[in-house]
Amino acid sequence: MSNRTVFFISDGTGITAETFGNAILAQFEISPRHVRLPFIDTVDKAHQAIRHINHTGELEGKRPIVFTTLVNMDILAVLKAQCNGMLLDMFGIFVAPLESELGIKSNHRVGRFSDASKSKAYDERIEAINFSLAHDDGQSHRDLAGSDVILVGVSRSGKTPTTLYLAMQYGLKASNYPLIPEDFERRQLPPALVPHRKKIFGLTIAPERLSQIRNERRPNSTYSSLANCRNEIHEAEAMMRREGIRWLSTTTKSIEEIATTILQEIRPERLEY
Amino acid sequence: MSNRTVFFISDGTGITAETFGNAILAQFEISPRHVRLPFIDTVDKAHQAIRHINHTGELEGKRPIVFTTLVNMDILAVLKAQCNGMLLDMFGIFVAPLESELGIKSNHRVGRFSDASKSKAYDERIEAINFSLAHDDGQSHRDLAGSDVILVGVSRSGKTPTTLYLAMQYGLKASNYPLIPEDFERRQLPPALVPHRKKIFGLTIAPERLSQIRNERRPNSTYSSLANCRNEIHEAEAMMRREGIRWLSTTTKSIEEIATTILQEIRPERLEY
Repeated sequence: MSNRTVFFISDGTGITAETFGNAILAQFEISPRHVRLPFIDTVDKAHQAIRHINHTGELEGKRPIVFTTLVNMDILAVLKAQCNGMLLDMFGIFVAPLESELGIKSNHRVGRFSDASKSKAYDERIEAINFSLAHDDGQSHRDLAGSDVILVGVSRSGKTPTTLYLAMQYGLKASNYPLIPEDFERRQLPPALVPHRKKIFGLTIAPERLSQIRNERRPNSTYSSLANCRNEIHEAEAMMRREGIRWLSTTTKSIEEIATTILQEIRPERLEY
Repeated sequence: MSNRTVFFISDGTGITAETFGNAILAQFEISPRHVRLPFIDTVDKAHQAIRHINHTGELEGKRPIVFTTLVNMDILAVLKAQCNGMLLDMFGIFVAPLESELGIKSNHRVGRFSDASKSKAYDERIEAINFSLAHDDGQSHRDLAGSDVILVGVSRSGKTPTTLYLAMQYGLKASNYPLIPEDFERRQLPPALVPHRKKIFGLTIAPERLSQIRNERRPNSTYSSLANCRNEIHEAEAMMRREGIRWLSTTTKSIEEIATTILQEIRPERLEY
Protein backbone atom coordinates (compact mmCIF):
# COMPACT_ATOMS: atom_id res chain seq x y z
CA MET A 1 0.00 0.00 0.00
CA SER A 2 2.99 2.32 0.11
CA ASN A 3 2.70 3.19 -3.58
CA ARG A 4 -0.04 5.65 -2.80
CA THR A 5 0.77 9.28 -2.11
CA VAL A 6 -1.08 11.65 0.17
CA PHE A 7 -0.88 15.39 -0.49
CA PHE A 8 -1.54 18.12 2.04
CA ILE A 9 -2.42 21.39 0.34
CA SER A 10 -3.02 24.72 2.01
CA ASP A 11 -2.85 28.42 1.30
CA GLY A 12 -1.09 28.68 4.67
CA THR A 13 1.42 26.40 6.39
CA GLY A 14 -0.58 23.22 5.80
CA ILE A 15 -0.06 22.22 9.43
CA THR A 16 -3.79 21.92 10.08
CA ALA A 17 -4.26 19.84 6.94
CA GLU A 18 -1.44 17.54 7.97
CA THR A 19 -2.46 17.24 11.62
CA PHE A 20 -6.00 16.34 10.73
CA GLY A 21 -5.09 14.22 7.71
CA ASN A 22 -2.64 12.18 9.78
CA ALA A 23 -5.31 11.58 12.39
CA ILE A 24 -7.66 10.25 9.72
CA LEU A 25 -4.96 8.14 8.06
CA ALA A 26 -4.04 6.62 11.44
CA GLN A 27 -7.39 4.83 11.14
CA PHE A 28 -5.98 2.74 8.29
CA GLU A 29 -3.15 0.23 8.15
CA ILE A 30 -1.29 2.04 5.41
CA SER A 31 1.97 3.95 5.21
CA PRO A 32 1.54 6.30 2.29
CA ARG A 33 4.18 8.75 1.11
CA HIS A 34 3.49 12.30 2.35
CA VAL A 35 3.87 15.39 0.21
CA ARG A 36 3.35 18.79 1.82
CA LEU A 37 2.44 21.66 -0.47
CA PRO A 38 2.15 24.75 1.74
CA PHE A 39 1.59 28.38 0.72
CA ILE A 40 -0.47 27.51 -2.38
CA ASP A 41 -1.88 31.03 -2.52
CA THR A 42 -2.08 31.80 -6.24
CA VAL A 43 -3.79 30.10 -9.17
CA ASP A 44 -0.34 29.60 -10.73
CA LYS A 45 0.86 27.66 -7.73
CA ALA A 46 -2.37 25.66 -7.81
CA HIS A 47 -1.60 24.64 -11.39
CA GLN A 48 1.88 23.49 -10.34
CA ALA A 49 0.35 21.49 -7.49
CA ILE A 50 -2.18 19.91 -9.86
CA ARG A 51 0.59 18.84 -12.27
CA HIS A 52 2.47 17.30 -9.32
CA ILE A 53 -0.62 15.42 -8.11
CA ASN A 54 -1.74 14.22 -11.54
CA HIS A 55 1.77 13.13 -12.51
CA THR A 56 2.10 11.18 -9.26
CA GLY A 57 -1.25 9.51 -9.90
CA GLU A 58 -0.13 8.40 -13.34
CA LEU A 59 3.15 7.00 -12.04
CA GLU A 60 1.49 5.09 -9.22
CA GLY A 61 -1.58 3.96 -11.12
CA LYS A 62 -3.74 5.07 -8.20
CA ARG A 63 -5.26 8.45 -7.61
CA PRO A 64 -3.50 10.30 -4.79
CA ILE A 65 -5.41 11.34 -1.69
CA VAL A 66 -5.47 15.11 -1.34
CA PHE A 67 -6.30 16.79 1.97
CA THR A 68 -6.88 20.51 1.53
CA THR A 69 -7.64 23.37 3.87
CA LEU A 70 -7.80 25.95 1.09
CA VAL A 71 -9.96 28.94 1.97
CA ASN A 72 -9.44 30.83 -1.27
CA MET A 73 -12.42 29.76 -3.36
CA ASP A 74 -10.79 30.57 -6.72
CA ILE A 75 -7.83 28.34 -5.96
CA LEU A 76 -10.05 25.59 -4.59
CA ALA A 77 -12.22 25.76 -7.73
CA VAL A 78 -9.17 25.23 -9.97
CA LEU A 79 -8.13 22.26 -7.87
CA LYS A 80 -11.62 20.76 -7.92
CA ALA A 81 -11.86 21.14 -11.69
CA GLN A 82 -8.46 19.79 -12.72
CA CYS A 83 -6.97 17.60 -10.03
CA ASN A 84 -7.34 13.85 -10.57
CA GLY A 85 -6.72 13.02 -6.92
CA MET A 86 -9.35 12.15 -4.32
CA LEU A 87 -10.02 15.61 -2.95
CA LEU A 88 -10.91 15.82 0.74
CA ASP A 89 -11.89 19.44 1.27
CA MET A 90 -11.66 19.78 5.02
CA PHE A 91 -12.84 23.36 5.32
CA GLY A 92 -15.68 23.47 2.81
CA ILE A 93 -17.44 20.57 4.38
CA PHE A 94 -17.85 22.27 7.75
CA VAL A 95 -17.79 25.97 6.91
CA ALA A 96 -21.07 26.06 4.99
CA PRO A 97 -23.19 24.43 7.75
CA LEU A 98 -21.52 26.68 10.32
CA GLU A 99 -22.33 29.78 8.27
CA SER A 100 -26.00 28.92 8.40
CA GLU A 101 -25.86 27.91 12.09
CA LEU A 102 -24.09 31.12 13.15
CA GLY A 103 -25.95 33.33 10.71
CA ILE A 104 -22.72 34.99 9.57
CA LYS A 105 -20.41 34.58 6.59
CA SER A 106 -16.95 33.11 6.93
CA ASN A 107 -14.11 35.49 6.21
CA HIS A 108 -12.02 33.14 4.06
CA ARG A 109 -9.01 34.26 6.03
CA VAL A 110 -5.90 32.43 4.90
CA GLY A 111 -4.05 30.45 7.49
CA ARG A 112 -4.78 30.67 11.16
CA PHE A 113 -1.06 31.17 11.75
CA SER A 114 -0.67 34.00 9.28
CA ASP A 115 -1.68 36.89 11.48
CA ALA A 116 -0.97 34.97 14.66
CA SER A 117 2.36 36.72 14.98
CA LYS A 118 0.67 40.06 15.68
CA SER A 119 -1.68 38.78 18.36
CA LYS A 120 -1.42 38.99 22.13
CA ALA A 121 -1.98 35.24 22.41
CA TYR A 122 1.01 34.67 20.16
CA ASP A 123 3.28 36.93 22.21
CA GLU A 124 2.17 35.11 25.34
CA ARG A 125 2.99 31.80 23.74
CA ILE A 126 6.54 32.90 22.89
CA GLU A 127 6.91 34.31 26.40
CA ALA A 128 5.71 30.96 27.80
CA ILE A 129 8.33 29.07 25.77
CA ASN A 130 11.08 31.35 27.05
CA PHE A 131 9.74 31.04 30.59
CA SER A 132 9.68 27.25 30.41
CA LEU A 133 13.25 27.16 29.09
CA ALA A 134 14.45 29.47 31.87
CA HIS A 135 12.66 27.33 34.47
CA ASP A 136 13.78 23.96 33.16
CA ASP A 137 15.18 21.54 35.71
CA GLY A 138 14.86 23.92 38.65
CA GLN A 139 17.30 26.33 37.00
CA SER A 140 15.57 29.34 38.47
CA HIS A 141 13.53 29.79 41.64
CA ARG A 142 12.71 33.29 40.48
CA ASP A 143 9.12 33.61 39.55
CA LEU A 144 8.12 30.02 40.29
CA ALA A 145 4.99 31.78 41.53
CA GLY A 146 4.46 32.99 37.96
CA SER A 147 4.21 29.41 36.70
CA ASP A 148 0.88 28.05 35.60
CA VAL A 149 2.08 24.50 36.20
CA ILE A 150 5.13 23.04 37.97
CA LEU A 151 6.13 19.48 37.11
CA VAL A 152 8.14 17.43 39.58
CA GLY A 153 9.77 14.04 39.29
CA VAL A 154 13.14 12.29 39.27
CA SER A 155 15.70 13.04 36.60
CA ARG A 156 14.60 11.79 33.14
CA SER A 157 11.00 11.07 34.06
CA GLY A 158 9.72 13.17 31.13
CA LYS A 159 9.40 16.62 32.69
CA THR A 160 11.26 18.73 30.12
CA PRO A 161 9.50 17.68 26.90
CA THR A 162 6.15 17.97 28.67
CA THR A 163 6.77 21.51 29.97
CA LEU A 164 7.91 22.61 26.50
CA TYR A 165 4.83 21.07 24.93
CA LEU A 166 2.53 22.82 27.42
CA ALA A 167 4.22 26.13 26.56
CA MET A 168 4.24 25.58 22.80
CA GLN A 169 0.72 24.19 22.45
CA TYR A 170 -1.19 26.02 25.16
CA GLY A 171 0.96 29.07 25.95
CA LEU A 172 1.27 27.93 29.55
CA LYS A 173 4.20 28.94 31.73
CA ALA A 174 5.31 25.49 32.76
CA SER A 175 8.29 25.00 35.07
CA ASN A 176 9.87 21.77 36.09
CA TYR A 177 11.74 20.87 39.20
CA PRO A 178 13.72 17.71 39.88
CA LEU A 179 13.26 15.50 42.91
CA ILE A 180 16.73 14.45 44.00
CA PRO A 181 18.20 12.07 46.59
CA GLU A 182 18.68 14.95 49.08
CA ASP A 183 14.93 15.58 49.01
CA PHE A 184 14.29 11.92 49.74
CA GLU A 185 16.72 11.96 52.68
CA ARG A 186 15.02 15.02 54.13
CA ARG A 187 11.69 13.35 53.36
CA GLN A 188 10.35 16.75 52.32
CA LEU A 189 9.41 18.58 49.14
CA PRO A 190 12.13 20.96 47.91
CA PRO A 191 11.43 24.09 50.03
CA ALA A 192 11.10 26.34 46.93
CA LEU A 193 8.05 24.30 45.88
CA VAL A 194 6.10 24.33 49.12
CA PRO A 195 4.21 27.63 48.51
CA HIS A 196 3.04 26.42 45.09
CA ARG A 197 1.54 23.07 45.96
CA LYS A 198 -1.70 23.69 44.05
CA LYS A 199 0.16 24.00 40.75
CA ILE A 200 2.38 20.98 41.22
CA PHE A 201 1.92 17.82 39.19
CA GLY A 202 4.18 14.78 39.51
CA LEU A 203 5.56 12.49 36.82
CA THR A 204 6.75 9.01 37.55
CA ILE A 205 7.97 6.20 35.32
CA ALA A 206 8.62 2.46 35.52
CA PRO A 207 12.13 1.89 36.99
CA GLU A 208 13.05 -0.46 34.11
CA ARG A 209 12.24 2.22 31.52
CA LEU A 210 14.00 4.92 33.56
CA SER A 211 17.14 2.81 33.80
CA GLN A 212 17.07 2.27 30.04
CA ILE A 213 16.72 6.03 29.35
CA ARG A 214 19.44 6.97 31.83
CA ASN A 215 21.76 4.33 30.42
CA GLU A 216 21.65 6.06 27.06
CA ARG A 217 23.07 9.16 28.75
CA ARG A 218 25.43 7.64 31.30
CA PRO A 219 26.00 3.98 30.59
CA ASN A 220 26.88 1.68 33.49
CA SER A 221 26.68 4.40 36.14
CA THR A 222 25.13 4.16 39.59
CA TYR A 223 22.78 6.89 38.36
CA SER A 224 21.35 4.63 35.69
CA SER A 225 21.48 1.30 37.53
CA LEU A 226 18.16 -0.46 37.94
CA ALA A 227 18.64 -0.66 41.72
CA ASN A 228 19.11 3.09 42.00
CA CYS A 229 16.21 3.84 39.64
CA ARG A 230 13.95 1.53 41.67
CA ASN A 231 14.93 3.30 44.85
CA GLU A 232 14.49 6.82 43.47
CA ILE A 233 11.09 5.99 41.99
CA HIS A 234 9.97 4.32 45.20
CA GLU A 235 11.00 7.39 47.20
CA ALA A 236 9.50 9.86 44.73
CA GLU A 237 6.14 8.08 44.64
CA ALA A 238 6.10 7.83 48.43
CA MET A 239 6.80 11.55 48.70
CA MET A 240 4.07 12.47 46.21
CA ARG A 241 1.58 10.28 48.02
CA ARG A 242 2.56 11.77 51.38
CA GLU A 243 2.36 15.33 50.10
CA GLY A 244 -0.96 14.80 48.31
CA ILE A 245 0.51 15.62 44.88
CA ARG A 246 -1.38 14.39 41.85
CA TRP A 247 0.78 12.31 39.52
CA LEU A 248 0.80 9.88 36.63
CA SER A 249 3.19 7.40 35.12
CA THR A 250 4.72 8.45 31.80
CA THR A 251 5.97 4.98 30.91
CA THR A 252 3.54 4.27 28.09
CA LYS A 253 2.16 7.76 27.54
CA SER A 254 2.94 10.30 24.85
CA ILE A 255 3.69 13.96 25.63
CA GLU A 256 0.23 14.81 24.30
CA GLU A 257 -1.52 12.40 26.66
CA ILE A 258 0.55 13.53 29.63
CA ALA A 259 -0.14 17.21 28.86
CA THR A 260 -3.88 16.62 28.42
CA THR A 261 -4.10 14.76 31.73
CA ILE A 262 -2.18 17.51 33.53
CA LEU A 263 -4.54 20.18 32.18
CA GLN A 264 -7.54 18.21 33.36
CA GLU A 265 -6.10 17.91 36.86
CA ILE A 266 -4.50 21.32 37.37
CA ARG A 267 -6.95 23.42 35.33
CA PRO A 268 -4.70 26.48 35.09
CA GLU A 269 -6.61 29.73 35.42
CA ARG A 270 -5.32 31.10 32.15
CA LEU A 271 -6.84 28.27 30.12
CA GLU A 272 -10.57 28.32 29.59
CA TYR A 273 -12.55 25.15 30.00
CA MET B 1 -21.44 36.04 19.97
CA SER B 2 -19.45 35.02 23.04
CA ASN B 3 -22.46 33.35 24.68
CA ARG B 4 -21.98 30.31 22.49
CA THR B 5 -19.86 27.41 23.63
CA VAL B 6 -17.78 25.10 21.48
CA PHE B 7 -17.03 21.61 22.76
CA PHE B 8 -14.16 19.40 21.60
CA ILE B 9 -14.88 15.74 22.31
CA SER B 10 -12.55 12.85 21.74
CA ASP B 11 -11.84 9.37 22.99
CA GLY B 12 -8.16 10.44 23.01
CA THR B 13 -6.51 13.74 23.92
CA GLY B 14 -8.85 15.86 21.80
CA ILE B 15 -5.85 17.71 20.37
CA THR B 16 -6.79 16.87 16.79
CA ALA B 17 -10.40 17.96 17.39
CA GLU B 18 -9.22 21.23 18.87
CA THR B 19 -6.54 21.95 16.25
CA PHE B 20 -8.93 21.39 13.41
CA GLY B 21 -11.92 23.00 15.12
CA ASN B 22 -9.89 26.13 15.86
CA ALA B 23 -8.83 26.35 12.24
CA ILE B 24 -12.47 26.21 11.13
CA LEU B 25 -13.61 28.69 13.78
CA ALA B 26 -10.86 31.12 12.72
CA GLN B 27 -12.99 31.58 9.59
CA PHE B 28 -15.61 33.35 11.67
CA GLU B 29 -15.53 36.59 13.65
CA ILE B 30 -16.59 34.96 16.88
CA SER B 31 -14.91 34.27 20.19
CA PRO B 32 -16.79 31.35 21.65
CA ARG B 33 -15.99 29.75 24.98
CA HIS B 34 -13.99 26.51 24.56
CA VAL B 35 -14.64 23.34 26.53
CA ARG B 36 -12.30 20.39 26.07
CA LEU B 37 -13.65 16.97 26.95
CA PRO B 38 -10.81 14.50 26.32
CA PHE B 39 -10.68 10.77 27.09
CA ILE B 40 -14.43 10.20 26.55
CA ASP B 41 -13.90 6.48 26.14
CA THR B 42 -16.91 4.92 27.84
CA VAL B 43 -20.66 5.28 27.34
CA ASP B 44 -20.89 6.58 30.92
CA LYS B 45 -18.50 9.40 30.17
CA ALA B 46 -20.44 10.12 26.99
CA HIS B 47 -23.60 10.56 29.08
CA GLN B 48 -21.79 13.01 31.35
CA ALA B 49 -20.56 14.93 28.32
CA ILE B 50 -24.09 15.03 26.88
CA ARG B 51 -25.49 16.43 30.12
CA HIS B 52 -22.78 19.10 30.09
CA ILE B 53 -23.52 20.04 26.48
CA ASN B 54 -27.29 20.04 26.81
CA HIS B 55 -27.19 22.02 30.05
CA THR B 56 -24.91 24.62 28.45
CA GLY B 57 -27.26 24.89 25.49
CA GLU B 58 -30.21 25.54 27.81
CA LEU B 59 -28.34 28.22 29.74
CA GLU B 60 -27.15 29.99 26.61
CA GLY B 61 -30.31 29.61 24.60
CA LYS B 62 -28.23 28.46 21.62
CA ARG B 63 -27.16 24.98 20.77
CA PRO B 64 -23.44 24.47 21.38
CA ILE B 65 -21.13 23.54 18.53
CA VAL B 66 -19.57 20.12 19.11
CA PHE B 67 -16.47 19.00 17.23
CA THR B 68 -15.81 15.31 17.73
CA THR B 69 -13.10 12.93 16.62
CA LEU B 70 -14.69 9.90 18.29
CA VAL B 71 -13.73 6.62 16.65
CA ASN B 72 -15.70 4.39 18.98
CA MET B 73 -18.98 3.92 17.13
CA ASP B 74 -21.02 3.04 20.25
CA ILE B 75 -20.00 6.24 21.99
CA LEU B 76 -20.58 8.30 18.85
CA ALA B 77 -24.04 6.75 18.47
CA VAL B 78 -25.01 7.78 22.00
CA LEU B 79 -23.82 11.32 21.31
CA LYS B 80 -25.67 11.49 18.01
CA ALA B 81 -28.88 10.26 19.60
CA GLN B 82 -28.95 12.42 22.71
CA CYS B 83 -26.81 15.52 22.31
CA ASN B 84 -28.68 18.71 21.46
CA GLY B 85 -25.58 20.47 20.13
CA MET B 86 -24.60 20.92 16.49
CA LEU B 87 -22.51 17.80 16.02
CA LEU B 88 -19.59 18.08 13.62
CA ASP B 89 -18.26 14.54 13.28
CA MET B 90 -14.81 15.12 11.84
CA PHE B 91 -13.79 11.50 11.45
CA GLY B 92 -16.98 9.90 10.18
CA ILE B 93 -17.25 12.31 7.31
CA PHE B 94 -13.91 11.33 5.78
CA VAL B 95 -13.37 7.78 7.01
CA ALA B 96 -16.24 6.19 5.06
CA PRO B 97 -15.18 7.57 1.64
CA LEU B 98 -11.58 6.59 2.40
CA GLU B 99 -12.62 3.04 3.28
CA SER B 100 -14.17 2.63 -0.15
CA GLU B 101 -11.27 4.37 -1.91
CA LEU B 102 -8.62 2.26 -0.19
CA GLY B 103 -10.68 -0.92 -0.22
CA ILE B 104 -9.91 -1.59 3.44
CA LYS B 105 -11.76 -1.06 6.71
CA SER B 106 -10.65 1.52 9.23
CA ASN B 107 -9.40 0.13 12.51
CA HIS B 108 -11.25 2.57 14.81
CA ARG B 109 -8.05 2.94 16.74
CA VAL B 110 -8.49 5.42 19.56
CA GLY B 111 -6.23 8.41 19.56
CA ARG B 112 -3.28 8.75 17.29
CA PHE B 113 -1.19 9.69 20.35
CA SER B 114 -2.22 6.68 22.41
CA ASP B 115 0.29 4.18 21.15
CA ALA B 116 2.67 6.84 19.89
CA SER B 117 4.78 6.44 22.99
CA LYS B 118 5.86 2.97 21.93
CA SER B 119 6.90 3.90 18.41
CA LYS B 120 10.30 4.59 16.95
CA ALA B 121 9.08 7.92 15.55
CA TYR B 122 8.07 8.97 19.04
CA ASP B 123 11.44 8.08 20.53
CA GLU B 124 13.11 10.04 17.75
CA ARG B 125 10.93 13.03 18.51
CA ILE B 126 11.89 13.02 22.19
CA GLU B 127 15.52 12.60 21.19
CA ALA B 128 15.18 15.56 18.82
CA ILE B 129 13.76 17.75 21.60
CA ASN B 130 16.66 16.86 23.87
CA PHE B 131 19.12 17.44 21.03
CA SER B 132 17.66 20.86 20.26
CA LEU B 133 17.82 21.87 23.92
CA ALA B 134 21.45 20.74 24.16
CA HIS B 135 22.30 22.65 20.98
CA ASP B 136 20.44 25.84 21.84
CA ASP B 137 22.36 29.09 21.37
CA GLY B 138 25.59 27.45 20.26
CA GLN B 139 25.88 25.67 23.62
CA SER B 140 27.53 22.66 22.09
CA HIS B 141 29.66 22.20 18.99
CA ARG B 142 29.53 18.50 19.58
CA ASP B 143 27.49 16.76 16.99
CA LEU B 144 26.55 19.88 15.01
CA ALA B 145 27.05 17.48 12.11
CA GLY B 146 24.18 15.43 13.53
CA SER B 147 21.79 18.36 13.12
CA ASP B 148 19.11 18.23 10.46
CA VAL B 149 18.89 22.02 10.45
CA ILE B 150 21.06 24.78 11.97
CA LEU B 151 19.49 28.19 12.47
CA VAL B 152 21.69 31.27 12.63
CA GLY B 153 20.91 34.89 13.44
CA VAL B 154 21.56 37.62 15.98
CA SER B 155 20.47 37.24 19.58
CA ARG B 156 16.63 37.26 19.96
CA SER B 157 15.85 36.90 16.28
CA GLY B 158 13.54 33.94 16.97
CA LYS B 159 15.92 30.97 16.71
CA THR B 160 15.12 29.14 19.94
CA PRO B 161 11.31 28.82 19.66
CA THR B 162 11.71 27.80 16.02
CA THR B 163 14.24 25.04 16.72
CA LEU B 164 12.05 23.69 19.51
CA TYR B 165 9.02 23.73 17.24
CA LEU B 166 10.90 21.87 14.50
CA ALA B 167 11.90 19.23 17.05
CA MET B 168 8.49 18.93 18.68
CA GLN B 169 6.39 18.95 15.51
CA TYR B 170 8.64 17.20 13.01
CA GLY B 171 11.15 15.31 15.16
CA LEU B 172 14.00 17.21 13.54
CA LYS B 173 17.30 17.72 15.28
CA ALA B 174 17.45 21.48 15.02
CA SER B 175 20.40 23.43 16.44
CA ASN B 176 20.76 27.14 16.66
CA TYR B 177 23.86 29.26 16.64
CA PRO B 178 24.12 32.97 17.38
CA LEU B 179 25.82 35.48 15.12
CA ILE B 180 27.71 37.85 17.39
CA PRO B 181 29.70 41.09 16.95
CA GLU B 182 32.99 39.14 16.86
CA ASP B 183 31.75 37.26 13.78
CA PHE B 184 30.91 40.57 12.09
CA GLU B 185 34.38 41.98 12.85
CA ARG B 186 36.03 38.90 11.38
CA ARG B 187 33.56 39.13 8.50
CA GLN B 188 33.30 35.34 8.57
CA LEU B 189 30.83 32.69 9.60
CA PRO B 190 31.58 31.16 13.01
CA PRO B 191 34.19 28.49 12.12
CA ALA B 192 32.16 25.68 13.72
CA LEU B 193 29.43 26.29 11.14
CA VAL B 194 31.50 26.27 7.99
CA PRO B 195 31.39 22.49 7.35
CA HIS B 196 27.58 22.45 7.63
CA ARG B 197 26.65 25.21 5.22
CA LYS B 198 23.98 23.15 3.44
CA LYS B 199 21.93 22.78 6.62
CA ILE B 200 22.14 26.42 7.66
CA PHE B 201 19.15 28.73 7.53
CA GLY B 202 19.25 32.36 8.67
CA LEU B 203 16.68 34.35 10.62
CA THR B 204 16.58 38.11 10.56
CA ILE B 205 14.15 40.63 12.04
CA ALA B 206 13.31 44.33 11.71
CA PRO B 207 15.69 46.34 13.94
CA GLU B 208 12.76 48.18 15.56
CA ARG B 209 11.12 44.93 16.61
CA LEU B 210 14.44 43.47 17.77
CA SER B 211 15.12 46.52 19.92
CA GLN B 212 11.67 46.19 21.46
CA ILE B 213 12.20 42.49 22.27
CA ARG B 214 15.68 43.05 23.69
CA ASN B 215 14.44 45.97 25.78
CA GLU B 216 12.08 43.62 27.59
CA ARG B 217 15.12 41.63 28.70
CA ARG B 218 17.69 44.35 29.25
CA PRO B 219 16.05 47.77 29.29
CA ASN B 220 18.12 50.79 28.23
CA SER B 221 21.25 48.79 27.43
CA THR B 222 23.56 49.21 24.47
CA TYR B 223 22.56 45.65 23.57
CA SER B 224 18.94 46.67 23.08
CA SER B 225 19.46 50.17 21.64
CA LEU B 226 17.98 50.75 18.22
CA ALA B 227 21.36 51.90 16.86
CA ASN B 228 23.04 48.67 17.94
CA CYS B 229 20.16 46.50 16.68
CA ARG B 230 20.32 48.29 13.31
CA ASN B 231 24.02 47.67 13.07
CA GLU B 232 23.84 43.97 14.08
CA ILE B 233 21.01 43.28 11.64
CA HIS B 234 22.81 45.12 8.85
CA GLU B 235 25.97 43.07 9.46
CA ALA B 236 24.10 39.79 9.84
CA GLU B 237 22.16 40.25 6.61
CA ALA B 238 25.34 41.26 4.78
CA MET B 239 27.09 38.14 6.04
CA MET B 240 24.23 35.83 5.04
CA ARG B 241 24.14 37.39 1.58
CA ARG B 242 27.91 37.08 1.22
CA GLU B 243 27.91 33.46 2.38
CA GLY B 244 24.95 32.46 0.24
CA ILE B 245 22.81 31.47 3.22
CA ARG B 246 19.06 31.32 2.72
CA TRP B 247 17.15 33.44 5.21
CA LEU B 248 13.84 35.09 6.04
CA SER B 249 12.61 37.87 8.26
CA THR B 250 10.67 36.70 11.31
CA THR B 251 9.19 40.13 12.06
CA THR B 252 5.60 39.36 11.11
CA LYS B 253 5.79 35.58 10.91
CA SER B 254 4.61 32.93 13.36
CA ILE B 255 6.80 30.01 14.43
CA GLU B 256 4.64 27.76 12.24
CA GLU B 257 5.21 29.88 9.13
CA ILE B 258 8.94 30.18 9.81
CA ALA B 259 9.26 26.41 10.34
CA THR B 260 7.27 25.58 7.20
CA THR B 261 9.42 27.92 5.10
CA ILE B 262 12.63 26.43 6.52
CA LEU B 263 11.47 22.90 5.68
CA GLN B 264 10.71 23.96 2.11
CA GLU B 265 14.18 25.45 1.71
CA ILE B 266 16.36 22.97 3.58
CA ARG B 267 14.38 19.79 2.86
CA PRO B 268 16.05 17.70 5.56
CA GLU B 269 16.71 14.15 4.45
CA ARG B 270 14.84 12.63 7.34
CA LEU B 271 11.56 14.29 6.34
CA GLU B 272 9.73 12.91 3.35
CA TYR B 273 8.29 15.29 0.79
